[in-house]
Amino acid sequence: MSELPAPITAPPGADELAARLAKVQCAMREQGLDTYVSFDPVNIYYLTHFANQVHERPFLLVIPGEGVPTLVVPLLEKSHVEARARCPLDYATYYEFPAPEGGNWHDVYRAQIPSGSRVGVESAMPVGICQRTPGETRVTDIIEEVRLVKSEYEIGRNVHACQVVNLGHEKVLETCRPGVVEGAIYAAASQAMLGRILADIPHANIIVSRAVGAVWPPALSHDPHIVPTFGTAMEHGGPHVSIVFAQVDGYGVELERTFFLGAVPEPAKAPFDAMLAARARAYELARPGANLSEIDRAVRARITDRGYGDRILHRTGHGFGITGHEAPYVAEGYDRELEPGMLISIEPGIYIPGIGGFRHSDTVLVTDAGCVPLTRAPETLADLTIPL
Amino acid sequence: MSELPAPITAPPGADELAARLAKVQCAMREQGLDTYVSFDPVNIYYLTHFANQVHERPFLLVIPGEGVPTLVVPLLEKSHVEARARCPLDYATYYEFPAPEGGNWHDVYRAQIPSGSRVGVESAMPVGICQRTPGETRVTDIIEEVRLVKSEYEIGRNVHACQVVNLGHEKVLETCRPGVVEGAIYAAASQAMLGRILADIPHANIIVSRAVGAVWPPALSHDPHIVPTFGTAMEHGGPHVSIVFAQVDGYGVELERTFFLGAVPEPAKAPFDAMLAARARAYELARPGANLSEIDRAVRARITDRGYGDRILHRTGHGFGITGHEAPYVAEGYDRELEPGMLISIEPGIYIPGIGGFRHSDTVLVTDAGCVPLTRAPETLADLTIPL
Repeated sequence: MSELPAPITAPPGADELAARLAKVQCAMREQGLDTYVSFDPVNIYYLTHFANQVHERPFLLVIPGEGVPTLVVPLLEKSHVEARARCPLDYATYYEFPAPEGGNWHDVYRAQIPSGSRVGVESAMPVGICQRTPGETRVTDIIEEVRLVKSEYEIGRNVHACQVVNLGHEKVLETCRPGVVEGAIYAAASQAMLGRILADIPHANIIVSRAVGAVWPPALSHDPHIVPTFGTAMEHGGPHVSIVFAQVDGYGVELERTFFLGAVPEPAKAPFDAMLAARARAYELARPGANLSEIDRAVRARITDRGYGDRILHRTGHGFGITGHEAPYVAEGYDRELEPGMLISIEPGIYIPGIGGFRHSDTVLVTDAGCVPLTRAPETLADLTIPL
Repeated sequence: MSELPAPITAPPGADELAARLAKVQCAMREQGLDTYVSFDPVNIYYLTHFANQVHERPFLLVIPGEGVPTLVVPLLEKSHVEARARCPLDYATYYEFPAPEGGNWHDVYRAQIPSGSRVGVESAMPVGICQRTPGETRVTDIIEEVRLVKSEYEIGRNVHACQVVNLGHEKVLETCRPGVVEGAIYAAASQAMLGRILADIPHANIIVSRAVGAVWPPALSHDPHIVPTFGTAMEHGGPHVSIVFAQVDGYGVELERTFFLGAVPEPAKAPFDAMLAARARAYELARPGANLSEIDRAVRARITDRGYGDRILHRTGHGFGITGHEAPYVAEGYDRELEPGMLISIEPGIYIPGIGGFRHSDTVLVTDAGCVPLTRAPETLADLTIPL
């Protein structure tokens, strides 16, 4: 569990991006597709290293069965793409959204797809764009599938991103004291992380860079998806639950801990321990060949055995990569096997109104030998009880 | 042009949200729809005051022909919705994404729509969700249509948001000096704006709050959609082009100026003047009843008359509301009339490689009498040449 892959901060080489495209084109052949169209900016970034923001002017990557993809792009973004993309690309520009008859994005887009094509599209493609797609369209998430297993380069980028959130989490634990408001914790953690990102990657792309550190104090921690305001105050005791996540020049990870300020209330001890036990069970089971649905089931069973079966609000984990939330899912109903090179969170949680929330989350790499957390922070109740 | 509507920072009342829903349901009747489904978080926010982040767990607002909408929502987000929504809502929760057979989001979603329904969906709805929508679906952007004309409440919110960007723009002009890097300008402007947002709206929803201030120095300003890095340095002279935008607790606006540090290079004078002339033409024409396509054509003609017809990269403007970029568009091909209560940018631009970019942008309210800019910053070459 000790040797981590080396961190990488350099942009991807042409070979890395060519290998990603080759996998997509191979899957297209297997599925009998002549063309694949990507709208999702995450997928476009994965294949090109160019990041766009979604707005009314569509960006569409039209991928042929072999050869260079064509990016359908608004005229005023072309040089932006050229400045960032690191793979061969052809361009088809349109002037504006909307444009006079015959000069709209869909006129330009339609001309890129040979008539009679069998065209694959993402399930995330807006139906308004899908309706303008010529040929025989079929919804199939090929690029998400290719993204599931990471290359050595990607792992290096995520290892670096984890160094950033490790730093952010240290700032959170340093700053979080009774009476301190959320805004102060957020500012300290996010500035530290952003500073580190810019120091390590001076040309980091801000469209795909963000860093957030926050804490759910005990009054909220039983409710993991409620969003604290900047004025939310920290409390004596706990459980406080930290959430630190970052997308570092396009690579997303997270680190979360359940911790206490000064003292551990008696009713918090057993659920904290049950959460640790469930987490240990997940680490035990998360190895190549394990079924993700079954891991989730076994982890839930461990929580249920401890008497908290009705205090579960979410699955055991989710994948990472370009984003901080993607496939594979460690969830009942997601019936596929873990593979080396997958990157997942392990974060079983227990949520008890009146007592609070209990969840640690790490960004974990699946290797041939089992799994290795790439994030680092204290784990035990003793280490997570901060003396005041 | 002097009397601005009063700023509003309070959340919407039940009557405001009821009026928005009534307009949507009225349009549904006109279009013969039994049900309308909204996926777009902007539209869900508009109707409920609840903001979700889009991820793999869908949020779907199912609107019946009359009565209360049902929000299909992941279990762990229900209390988050309850904490923020300010309208009557029914809930249909699903446990997780994915979930075991029969307990997935689409099982819960399908059960909300009576069989045989005529169902309207947004063009932004992902095709993967559209395919799971029962009944006879039709793509129709009803809520975008309703959002085009603002209520008095919305105008008050946007007036307040403009006060925030006015402050941010002052900070940009204060901070921007030769040699200063982008990161310093960004930090000064965005912190000032965020501070103001939190001072005015302590419970501002951070999911729909952001504030960005940046400057394109002369080396980049001819290229409006390239994104500077934090290390990009400002220069002597100009044209520098500022971009300040904010989404203030869910209401988006922008303010941009072309300015000079110390001196105005001779070749920049004529295009600056041409830009001002085109802008004046747009203000002249932007009144209720004017066709948006024709305004854009006339403004382009003014630029072309000055000899810069081949230096145009974008339309004259776009709408504002919940976001900083939405319908209506001041663009050739957008053939509809301006109406009182619409909120648009007026920002004709001229872009000359080797000289730079020329664009002012304001957030402008269309009134019975014409139009009123809600943003305020210097406009003339003299006022925008900053002494060093």
